[in-house]
Amino acid sequence: MNLESERAALMQTSRDWARTAASGDLEQTLSFWSDDAIVMPPGQSAVVGKAAIREFLQRTSTIPGFSITWEPEQATVANDADLGFMVERNRVTSAEATGAIREQFGKAVTVWRKDSMGRWKCVVDTWNENPTEVAIPL
Amino acid sequence: MNLESERAALMQTSRDWARTAASGDLEQTLSFWSDDAIVMPPGQSAVVGKAAIREFLQRTSTIPGFSITWEPEQATVANDADLGFMVERNRVTSAEATGAIREQFGKAVTVWRKDSMGRWKCVVDTWNENPTEVAIPL
Repeated sequence: MNLESERAALMQTSRDWARTAASGDLEQTLSFWSDDAIVMPPGQSAVVGKAAIREFLQRTSTIPGFSITWEPEQATVANDADLGFMVERNRVTSAEATGAIREQFGKAVTVWRKDSMGRWKCVVDTWNENPTEVAIPL
Repeated sequence: MNLESERAALMQTSRDWARTAASGDLEQTLSFWSDDAIVMPPGQSAVVGKAAIREFLQRTSTIPGFSITWEPEQATVANDADLGFMVERNRVTSAEATGAIREQFGKAVTVWRKDSMGRWKCVVDTWNENPTEVAIPL
């Protein structure tokens, strides 16, 4: 098992996912999660399973000025390369009542499981805010 | 590899850790993290490494009315039982200016790595808030 190439594959998957999310393609964006994935957004209940995550994405996309992007910082995989996780940093935007765009920087943890086809799928996805003063622009 | 017993060991480790944290024993509480652990609290920068986590715990313990407890909901381990993760729910208290105790319920993800002695150590620890209306008392 080449763990270095597995780590690189995870990092690339995160970057591909961010590009897909930015494109607005909902079904392609959803395809990066496993069917049983758990999304844990700040201030909201956990969102469990693909159908609930689809609704969550649809709801989120209606937020004025909404955008999200992220960049992986590090990836770790298990010896058997069946499980892995990444630490990522992200940037979320939304429009204030004045129309001004507000930026919120955060940090994320994603856990990944390899499926029967050998593809890494995200099984847990959570994030929270950084203080503004340590925001790292992407 | 008996994955069921490894999962049970992780769940028990989480419960032991919550009890240790409640006892106020700082060094015992710290011993559940790996030396290179990353703690990612909401609204704060990531806290990286045992020394920084010690300072974080010391700072947190001075918050009036502060307490934290948690309960694991599920544990998953890799085929080789070298890496695993848990989804947990937590309850944090702090005192308002009036002295009234405020409860905040949240959800957490912890990632675990087995060390050279075969002990599970927490390598990533992050959480965020739930909306009050879905608070589940522990």
